[in-house]
This record gives sequence, structure tokens and C-alpha cells, in this order.
Amino acid sequence: MAEKIRKRSEDYSQWYLDIVTRAGLAENSEVRGCMVIKPHGYAIWEKMQQGLDRLFKDTGHVNAYFPLLIPKSFLAREEEMAAGFAKECAVVTHYRLKAIPGKGVQVDPDAKLEEELVIRPTSETIIWHTYKNWIQSYRDLPLLINQWCNVVRWEMRTRLFLRTAEFLWQEGHTAHATQAEAEEETRRMLHVYKTFAEEWMAMPVLTGPKTEAQKFPGAVYTLCIEAMMQDCRALQSGTSHFLGQNFSKAFDVRFQNQQGQLEYAWATSWGASTRLVGGLVMTHSDDQGLVLPPRLAPIHAVIVPIFRKPEEKEAVLAAAQKLAQDIRDLPLGPWLSHQPIVAKVDDRDQYQPGFKFNEWELRGIPIRVELGPKDLASGSCVLARRDLPGKESKEMNVPLVSAAARIAELLPIIQKNLFERACQFREANSFEVNSYEEFKKKLEEPGGFLWAHYDGTRETEERIASDTKATVRCIPDSRKPERGKCMVTGKPSASRVVFAKAY
Amino acid sequence: MAEKIRKRSEDYSQWYLDIVTRAGLAENSEVRGCMVIKPHGYAIWEKMQQGLDRLFKDTGHVNAYFPLLIPKSFLAREEEMAAGFAKECAVVTHYRLKAIPGKGVQVDPDAKLEEELVIRPTSETIIWHTYKNWIQSYRDLPLLINQWCNVVRWEMRTRLFLRTAEFLWQEGHTAHATQAEAEEETRRMLHVYKTFAEEWMAMPVLTGPKTEAQKFPGAVYTLCIEAMMQDCRALQSGTSHFLGQNFSKAFDVRFQNQQGQLEYAWATSWGASTRLVGGLVMTHSDDQGLVLPPRLAPIHAVIVPIFRKPEEKEAVLAAAQKLAQDIRDLPLGPWLSHQPIVAKVDDRDQYQPGFKFNEWELRGIPIRVELGPKDLASGSCVLARRDLPGKESKEMNVPLVSAAARIAELLPIIQKNLFERACQFREANSFEVNSYEEFKKKLEEPGGFLWAHYDGTRETEERIASDTKATVRCIPDSRKPERGKCMVTGKPSASRVVFAKAY
Repeated sequence: MAEKIRKRSEDYSQWYLDIVTRAGLAENSEVRGCMVIKPHGYAIWEKMQQGLDRLFKDTGHVNAYFPLLIPKSFLAREEEMAAGFAKECAVVTHYRLKAIPGKGVQVDPDAKLEEELVIRPTSETIIWHTYKNWIQSYRDLPLLINQWCNVVRWEMRTRLFLRTAEFLWQEGHTAHATQAEAEEETRRMLHVYKTFAEEWMAMPVLTGPKTEAQKFPGAVYTLCIEAMMQDCRALQSGTSHFLGQNFSKAFDVRFQNQQGQLEYAWATSWGASTRLVGGLVMTHSDDQGLVLPPRLAPIHAVIVPIFRKPEEKEAVLAAAQKLAQDIRDLPLGPWLSHQPIVAKVDDRDQYQPGFKFNEWELRGIPIRVELGPKDLASGSCVLARRDLPGKESKEMNVPLVSAAARIAELLPIIQKNLFERACQFREANSFEVNSYEEFKKKLEEPGGFLWAHYDGTRETEERIASDTKATVRCIPDSRKPERGKCMVTGKPSASRVVFAKAY
Repeated sequence: MAEKIRKRSEDYSQWYLDIVTRAGLAENSEVRGCMVIKPHGYAIWEKMQQGLDRLFKDTGHVNAYFPLLIPKSFLAREEEMAAGFAKECAVVTHYRLKAIPGKGVQVDPDAKLEEELVIRPTSETIIWHTYKNWIQSYRDLPLLINQWCNVVRWEMRTRLFLRTAEFLWQEGHTAHATQAEAEEETRRMLHVYKTFAEEWMAMPVLTGPKTEAQKFPGAVYTLCIEAMMQDCRALQSGTSHFLGQNFSKAFDVRFQNQQGQLEYAWATSWGASTRLVGGLVMTHSDDQGLVLPPRLAPIHAVIVPIFRKPEEKEAVLAAAQKLAQDIRDLPLGPWLSHQPIVAKVDDRDQYQPGFKFNEWELRGIPIRVELGPKDLASGSCVLARRDLPGKESKEMNVPLVSAAARIAELLPIIQKNLFERACQFREANSFEVNSYEEFKKKLEEPGGFLWAHYDGTRETEERIASDTKATVRCIPDSRKPERGKCMVTGKPSASRVVFAKAY
């Protein structure tokens, strides 16, 4: 709490880390690349889980749980997947240690596994192996299953939330009787992610397919949502894959169709992870700390009682508790998924109000209520919004009797303001560019989403990436039909795509 | 669905497995000892998580997440823990595979870890290593943290839900400034588990300390809840450990107390797992299948429309949908944690009503609504309770206009009935025994909880276990002060304890 966090403009990367660690979201652990998600960070993740889970269930999905450990040979069954994930798999080779008193513990050489197990980097293989027994007839389809779990991908360069060796996520795995139905599901889940990103996280996203070079190993194609961070880089925030019959063929999952013929099932998978917490931080936060959209805030309003003399304390605290109770008693509504608005009275004796203001600002709580003896005398309080700067943030003389209702009113206003601000930021940093020179120049200054023509080949995309570190983020659904010429090769292009540097 | 499930009286163990697999709760996976939790089983676990999580938060706890992987050397820091868990640890030795096109994947020998990692069997070590940085002053205490996660303990003999190599659980880890406060927490969480077992699961439990021989490796003492299954065996269903300063000393976690002196922090840990799902099955289910207490049922009422002629179908389905909507529109209450009562209309065309009755009975849904043309003509329906047998289960001629309200009324009645039935079963199978002969005889027939005197030594407990396979389940809090003599050695005993064969 002592030092200030770094400014975005001075050192963006350090600003991000400062917020994540100082706002109590996460920290690095002793184990390379694995993070500890601290209570405030985990509470945000829980809110995300609740929001996404409701959207999944409303679209007919159910949750289940599949094993953490996968036989090594399963990975080899689907060749692209093996090539894509083998190089980052944590491998379990033994199932026992020996404790040697006074000398610690050693791996027991007699407890070597016959076949090594990998910790799931993603679960298509074990799930499609299981589905083989669940799918015999078209009547068993569709299977619309999701799981919430941890996965491990051994990354060498990690960054809290954005890229970690272990992360938490959900992965949906669905099986369908027809290609059309599976493709519809792929699209449906992309839109669930878009809805969640925009309406819960207040983070605008582009949607669309990835290029061949960027798609998921094992997918026929990958759809994604892409958000812009405040340093103008892109963050892939959720992906939905159409897997065709790749996994049903690899695991021999056939069903009898309505005509009595055997067919391979059609598959999708889709996932979003704790990476979203990093995206949330980088979309809204400022130089004072975290800024949370109200629908994902673990605490919506913090009430800071202010008093100097002991005789003031009792009355101020009682009024603060009364207001907190008024807030708890507000009617529940669908906007917060019928969960109560959460108010906290910060009654800690050891800290001064100014210290508390800074701390709750750092932690991103949407509304601060200031309540002192003078306010009490006039039956009012001060509300300070986290999304607005300085004096603009304050509503003075809010009557205590209607303060709870005013807070309930402000939350959607704050949510909307954050979304609009993020949309404006993205618009201000999106450019159509028409030559490779312009592309390279814009990419350095100011950066952002560059809408450009290219010839659609892997070679050209790789050349651009190697020249500039920018990749095609997606072939945006919102693109206009506009024929053009590749900015690199001059070959024809059917429409612009979006390039950016990415996390 | 085709075959009947085995009867409890014929083959208890197979009856249990039949219910777990046929009711769609879980199945064995390809990976030794690891289970797949199927959607219906996972939905019950989700309900359990919600119930427990609410109780944890209401007692001031927050959630966080710590790494899956733990450096091998951490385990060695606390000697009892090393001795207790080393022999069942899955060990990660490498972080990369090589995909060899056409030849599958191999472990990359160049990617050997400098220090092996174990998959957490429990997280005291990594968490106390982390707490070292979080705890400097008495002002940082207490830390009241819980995590929901998976753990792996390499078990050789596994049984779905009851004992699996990987399982899901929650583990609470708290740090306190004083011994008294930590002991109070240990007790508090024991009572949270008791409340959950009895009020949500409708499963009566004994509470009390474990003996030295049965306590958690690394604990000063362990408190537990013990339930009786329908084969009269005991199931340990939750444990709360007072860890003293064992882990703060092992990881050097000291804080400055109010007097300015450095002290080691005091610790507790407590856990409950997917084992509870097995306990739920074995407490209430019958020869027709699963029986779910309403507070943990993913679906509370299933409405089965009955019709023969196509012209009947439309009216019956419309009435069924109307009733489902009436149920959804019921006011939310605290008894179901402000969640709606869930009603499902089983409108599948391909199955007959009789088949549907059996299936929902097998899956344990608390109330079945039968609704046919005759019912409709008289504006009524039939309600069938899952907790009562045969004709007794049915309420005929329930007016449709009040059916939703009647269902809401019945749910707590069913919950209470299940709890009372389980209490009666436990009472009927609990015996005071006064000699070792009587003990051995009763243990064989009928089995159950045997309240007996023993001398409190590890030797005598081990002798009894080796003679009879019964162990001390707990030193029950509800014991009367009654001095006696050990049934084996004749040495003095301060009170009776409870012996049983256990899962």
C-alpha cells in the first residue's frame, strides 16, 4: 500500500503487474509459471463463472467433470493436437515418493507408470474417448457438456492471468448429429462469449474466424472474440472451435442416424479462462488502480465512516450500518442475476479515511460512500464513483433515506459508461491502412487494430508477423465487402482483416 | 435402463455401483482410479458446493486458488505429512513431450525438471509457504481462506465417489494469532459440516475427535463427522483439523503480536469432498434407485404428460407447461437459498410414461407429477413422492390450480422425512456393548455403530482393527460421562467411544 502504482504512460507492463499484485488479485508462486489467485482476484473469477455458467445453462448446456490426467497415447490420436500441445505438457511418470526420515523425500523408482500420463492441456482427447460409450444413436445427441477445471500448459514466458502454466477455465465439448447443427453451436457459443464480454465485462470485442495459422490444433476452424487493451494490443478472450469429425474419427465415435446408417459425430469445443481477469484489468483500470464493472464487482459499495471525536463514532457507524442494511434490503433483479447488491462498512479502527479511500480505489470498488458527522447532521452522504475522475466523481448531499436507491440506480450507469469508454478507445485506435509502409508506421505509433487487405496466405501472414510482430487477430464478422489488394504482395483480397500485436 | 438394479439385500456393493452408474452420476475412466463425474452427479455436487460455500462465507471465509503442483521438497518440511502422503503422490518429472509424426508421442528426455513436482494431495505445504509473505503482524490475522479444487492421491483400491485417485473437494486453511482462536475455528467448521450434512443432505452425523491413530498427518488433533450408511458401515464425511504451530514452524510463518513479540501463527485446515455424493447415495437410496433430499436435487419435480390419442397431446402438454411455469413463478425463499424450484416437463416422444416414471425414480427426483386427459378433465393431477413406497407415495386429485403450492409445501416435508428415517436407521443400528465377545458378535450381525469402552491406546485400537476390521470412528461429543473398563484389556476407560467398520 505504501508506494504508488506505476503510471500506464510510463511503464504499461509494470502498471499492470502493480495493479494485479497491489489490488490483491494474484501473485507468482514458488512453482514456475503457476500463480496464486488471491481472494479479491478469485472473487472476480467467481462472478465471471456465475455469469458465464448462467449463459451456458440458458443455452441448454450441463456441467460434468473429466479426469485431470490423460494417457500419453491419447494425445497422439489426433495428429494436429499432438503437434500443437506435446511440447508444453507436464508429464506424470511416477505414482509414489519415499519419505526417508531426516533426508526428505525421493521419487520411488519402483513406482514408475507403465504409460506416462499428461496433465490435461485441454480435454478433447479424454472426453471424446468417453463419448464413445455415450453415443450410440441419434437419440443420444446432441451432447451439450461443459466443465470448469484447471489445465496446465508449460509456458516459458508467463504473466499473471494473461499467460500462466496452470490456469482455470471452462471448456465446452459438444457432439452433434449433423455438421449444420455443430456449426450453429460454434456460432452460438461465440455469441455467448461476446454477450458476456460486452454486457458483464463491459469490454467490447470483435468476433470472427481465425486464420489457418492461428486456429486451434485439431479444429476445422476457430472463431474468437478479440478485445483491445489500453496499450492498444489485442487480447484473445474466448474461442469457439468447429472440430468437424476430427475427434470422432480419432476416437471412433459413430452413431446410428435416423436412416439406420452409422455416421461419425460432429464436434465443437469452446473455452474461456482466468485470462479474462487480466483482460478486465487492462480494459478499465487507471493510474489509481483497478476499475471494476459493477456486474463483476464482489463488493458494489464501500461505506467509509468519518469521525474525529469518540462521541461521533457511534452515531456515524450506526448510520453506516443502517445504510448497508438498506442496500441489502433492495429488491433483487435480473441485472445482478438476482444476487444482492453488496455493501461493506469499512469500520477498521487502525486506518484513516484517506487511507481507506485509496485502498478501495486501488481495489476497484464501483461506489464509495463517505459519511461523517456533518453529513449525518444534514441527513445526507457523499457518493463517489470509481469510473469518473476527481471532482466529477462525486455526488454531494445525497439524502441518506434515498442513498440505497441512488446506488442501485448508479450501478448500471457506471457499467454503461465503462463500456462506452472502452468502445470509444477502440474506435479511436482502429485504422484502415492501405500500404505496408503505413501499416508498419501506424503499428508503432499509435498501435491499435489495423484493418488491412492481405492475400489470405499463411506465408504472407508469417512474413508480416516476422517483420512487425503483428498477427491477424480475426477476419471480423463486421467487415464490409470490399475487394482490395494485399498490402504486401499486391494479390487480390476479398475483404479487410484486423491485424494487431497481441498478448 | 434395461436391467433392474441389484437389491441392497442381495449385493450391497453392486447395488451402490448400479445406482451410481445407472442414475448417471459417475463412471470409471480410462485412467486408473480416476472417475468421470456425469452431468446428473455433477449437478448434485454443484448443489453441495453452493450450500457449503454459503455456509463458509456466512462464517467469514473467502475463496482463493493455489497451485496444483507442489515442489517435492515442500512435502518433506513437515515430517508427519511426508510420511502420510508421500506414498500416494503422483509425480511430474518432465515438462515436454515430443510428437514424432507417425510414431505418436514420447517423453522428451531433455525436458526433465530440476526438482520434481507432486500433484497436490492436500495443500497445507504450498499454502503455508505462501502465507509466509502474507502474515507479518497480528493485523494480518486471522486469514480465513478456502479453495475449491481437485487433488490426487494414488489409491490402489478405488470405488466411485468414495475413494478415487483424483477427487474434487474444498480445503479451508486458516491462520490465527492465538491457539484459542484456532481451536474455536476448528470447532466452528466441524459444526458447519454437521449443519450441512444434517440440514442439506438429511444425513445425521456423529461429531467428535479422532483417535491418535486416525488423525490427519500433521494435525495436533482431528475432528470429524461420521455418518452411517445403509449397510451399517461408517463414512467419514468431513474433517476439521487443529494444526497447532506445526506448519507455521515448518514454513517459518511468524508475526508480530500486539506486544511487539514474534510468534508462530496457529493453523487449522478442514475439508469435504465428492465423497459426500457417495454418502448421499448410500444414506437414502432404495432398490428402485437414487433418492435425493430436495435441498440438493437438481430437479425438484418432473411432470410426465400422459396421453394416447394425438388430440389429447396438445391439451395435456399445455397444462404440463402451465404447471411448470406456476412452479417457476413461486416466490423464492431462504430454504432453497433463494433459488427457484426446478420443474421439468418430460415431453420426450419416444418413451412411454411407465418408462419415464422408472427413469425419474432411478434418478431420485423428489416429486413426480402425473397428468393425463382424465386428470385434466377434473382439473387435477397426481403427485408421487419419491421418499415413500408404493401407494403411500401418491396424492390423488390434487387441484391443478394449487399443485405448485402443494409441491412447494411437500419439499420440506420430504426433506424432514428422509432425515428422520436416517436417524431412526442409525438409532436402530447403534448398540452399547460391554464385552469383546459381544462386540465381535454384534459387529458381524447386524453391524452398526458400537459404543464401547477401550483403554485409549493405539495398541488396543490396532489389535481390535486387526481382529475385526473395526476402528474407532470418533470419540463422540454426545458421549455420556461414564467410566468403565476396556473391553479388551480391562484397563480403565473414561467414556465409551464409537467403533464401526468404515469406508
